[in-house]
Amino acid sequence: MIRLTFITLSIFLISLNSFSQELDKNLFELSKKIVRTALVDRKGYQWLEELCKIGPRLPGSENSFKAIQWAKQKMIESGFDSVWLQPVMAPHWVRGNLEEAKIVKSKRFKSRKLLITALGGSVGTDKNGITGEIIPVYNFDDLKSKPDKVKGKIVFYNRPLDYGEVEPFAGYGGAVNQRTSGAIEAAKYGAIGVIVRSITTKHDNVPHTGVMSYVDTLPKIPAVAIGYQDANFLTEALSKEPDLQVNIKLSCKKLPDVLSYNVIGEIRGSEYPDEIIVVGGHFDSWDKGCGAHDDGAGCVQSMEVLDLFKRLNIQPKRTIRCVLFIDEEQTQTGAKEYAKFAQESNQKHLAAIEADRGAFTPRGFYADTDSSTLYYLQSFLPYLNLAKIDWIRKGGSGVDVSKIKNTKALFGYVPDSQRYMDVHHSDNDVFEAVHPREFELCSAAMAIMCLLLSEKGL
Amino acid sequence: MIRLTFITLSIFLISLNSFSQELDKNLFELSKKIVRTALVDRKGYQWLEELCKIGPRLPGSENSFKAIQWAKQKMIESGFDSVWLQPVMAPHWVRGNLEEAKIVKSKRFKSRKLLITALGGSVGTDKNGITGEIIPVYNFDDLKSKPDKVKGKIVFYNRPLDYGEVEPFAGYGGAVNQRTSGAIEAAKYGAIGVIVRSITTKHDNVPHTGVMSYVDTLPKIPAVAIGYQDANFLTEALSKEPDLQVNIKLSCKKLPDVLSYNVIGEIRGSEYPDEIIVVGGHFDSWDKGCGAHDDGAGCVQSMEVLDLFKRLNIQPKRTIRCVLFIDEEQTQTGAKEYAKFAQESNQKHLAAIEADRGAFTPRGFYADTDSSTLYYLQSFLPYLNLAKIDWIRKGGSGVDVSKIKNTKALFGYVPDSQRYMDVHHSDNDVFEAVHPREFELCSAAMAIMCLLLSEKGL
Repeated sequence: MIRLTFITLSIFLISLNSFSQELDKNLFELSKKIVRTALVDRKGYQWLEELCKIGPRLPGSENSFKAIQWAKQKMIESGFDSVWLQPVMAPHWVRGNLEEAKIVKSKRFKSRKLLITALGGSVGTDKNGITGEIIPVYNFDDLKSKPDKVKGKIVFYNRPLDYGEVEPFAGYGGAVNQRTSGAIEAAKYGAIGVIVRSITTKHDNVPHTGVMSYVDTLPKIPAVAIGYQDANFLTEALSKEPDLQVNIKLSCKKLPDVLSYNVIGEIRGSEYPDEIIVVGGHFDSWDKGCGAHDDGAGCVQSMEVLDLFKRLNIQPKRTIRCVLFIDEEQTQTGAKEYAKFAQESNQKHLAAIEADRGAFTPRGFYADTDSSTLYYLQSFLPYLNLAKIDWIRKGGSGVDVSKIKNTKALFGYVPDSQRYMDVHHSDNDVFEAVHPREFELCSAAMAIMCLLLSEKGL
Repeated sequence: MIRLTFITLSIFLISLNSFSQELDKNLFELSKKIVRTALVDRKGYQWLEELCKIGPRLPGSENSFKAIQWAKQKMIESGFDSVWLQPVMAPHWVRGNLEEAKIVKSKRFKSRKLLITALGGSVGTDKNGITGEIIPVYNFDDLKSKPDKVKGKIVFYNRPLDYGEVEPFAGYGGAVNQRTSGAIEAAKYGAIGVIVRSITTKHDNVPHTGVMSYVDTLPKIPAVAIGYQDANFLTEALSKEPDLQVNIKLSCKKLPDVLSYNVIGEIRGSEYPDEIIVVGGHFDSWDKGCGAHDDGAGCVQSMEVLDLFKRLNIQPKRTIRCVLFIDEEQTQTGAKEYAKFAQESNQKHLAAIEADRGAFTPRGFYADTDSSTLYYLQSFLPYLNLAKIDWIRKGGSGVDVSKIKNTKALFGYVPDSQRYMDVHHSDNDVFEAVHPREFELCSAAMAIMCLLLSEKGL
């Protein structure tokens, strides 16, 4: 027998006291209207379709600049009180047209292609590519146990996301270091390249990209991902022919940083205009699919939060500000720039909400705050449940808003997570993978949270 | 300002007392294993694929009998202690091959086809079909306000599911009477047929069927559904040409009742074998898609609950019984037959869980029970949350298990609902619309509930 720990308890504990508070009928009715309006109009969903038609939004790309202008224009058309672009220097990595891998030396598998995608930030190859034997490893410990077998070879990190984790983000967390640091670790032992099993919950052949890094003290070797099916094929092929060789050609490269922008729009508070509630997502994406769930959805939903206030003629007491952060996927320059601005301004950032977990049915909010504020926030649940929010728990907010200092609370908006890793950073992340009702309930949930924060304070 | 009502309160109120109970470490670890095993093995999901390959399961159809044998065989292979078929006389409605509708008299739209499906139980037409003008109505009040305009015409019930309802089941409930009773109401005023706008959340052209009824005192007129897009087209066409005519041909008919079966399997309890916990769904489906979500999923998940006990070598204290009810969609003869058996047996039915809301990520359980039992059940939440169950609330169980008398608690298992009405009773309800992780978490959630009921009692 074990006693519930405080943390386990706090997951389920919604105190009696929260509910001795009276419901504000006006806010309750407004919350209902928000949900109904979002679901019936599907306006944000139409916006997302428009955004996805522009294409993916790799920082520095033409699409990215078009999208920035598109968002600015939508905010102006919606009648936000202020709309501006905040300059940010952002990294500029380009994929180019060449991404090829095939088996070149093998009795059984010669010329068999592997469907690959360069990891974000990878160096390219020369026109002949790299060619080498494949050394499969499960993790860094496995790699370290074979120091003499790696030199001149391509390391194949073959550890899948742990499907047994109920939370795909936990499964992702358990596998992602082979993608982020795999090239560094492999280079220590003289590897010439890296192939990473995609971190995915889907049994297809779509490779998933994502950021990876180098250190200046080691050779920078090319790094690519392969999908679930090709990873299984390669595993099987290597069991039959451990000395088969693979050739990889990549044209990707890093260009000098470029001037880009955070897109910011706000509705000014009628009573406390200098108390700011931020709602936002990241406006960059990988150049796979169209970044529909990651994070076109979170951005458009943040825009729709303010648009719902305008549509319903709600004049908030406090300022609601939508921030679309550039460059979350790589170096978070957008978040740092905004946080600096927030720190230096005379305004008080009361709270900030980040939406960067896909556009699925709402489940809850993680709140990075003190216990008494959390306790108070849970009195919002009867309103938030109108949009299918069942809980507010202690937890991390998000990469972008977490850089803002001195707020009372930072929130991570939490939709259902089971399908997210099917699409994340891959060609599966398209508009068609977003469900209109699930999408709109996210907008509604965050709009209600902003309404309550704005009207009740914190 | 309004005070929270007791009902609103009870939605959020998880009492402190529930959590002063100690967690049973053994049950907690078993619950974790159940989740992990379901997610990793995906065995139920593979079963669902097999079942879907058999085809849809309209009672009396060859597919239905094949599916019954398939389920029985799977239960035997899984090593359930007893497996049997319970005879049930079930209705036998057949669609036949002919389902056509087109505009026959019109300047602009002549020969334009409408994609239709007969409603379940509808009479057919002769080979020339029925031909008449269309009288669009919003609801029965609208129909009653036009008593003189209906005679000899086809009534077009044009009320959509209310998208503004956060709960699609509520939207469904608000629109379904035009399908179930539309033919009766229209026949009162001399209509010759009925077209119903499909009750759907999806903006496609797929018609959704479902049960409809007649009374012997009125003419039995044919009734069909059309999809979202054709309903919009017809609305627009009628606004331009109110006197256009439509011809509908149907070959569907009702045959004499047939002998069919509930499929039942159980693992006998080691300490209280005569205390029964039922978990089940309905094994009939409409003949659209393959009845994957409705309710192949609920049935296969119920089978998997017991299979997870076998896989993990869990010997329950109480008997866990899987019941696949035939004929839920039409007359619930399977549920009535099982309830009669339960009533007449010497066994005590402690609890019964129905899974008939699709295979989406778990959210909660509705419990039809007394307040003190509900209060006690909420102490299960720390275990159930391992499979993403966030709440247990007072609520209805399901059409089938609600017929079982004298249980301590009847449960309706509640997954996320936002996508259900996209597929319900339509060609969209196919295996490919079921997500493996979402599916398996349903199995896990119900297995944990059965484990707790079995080990802790009620």
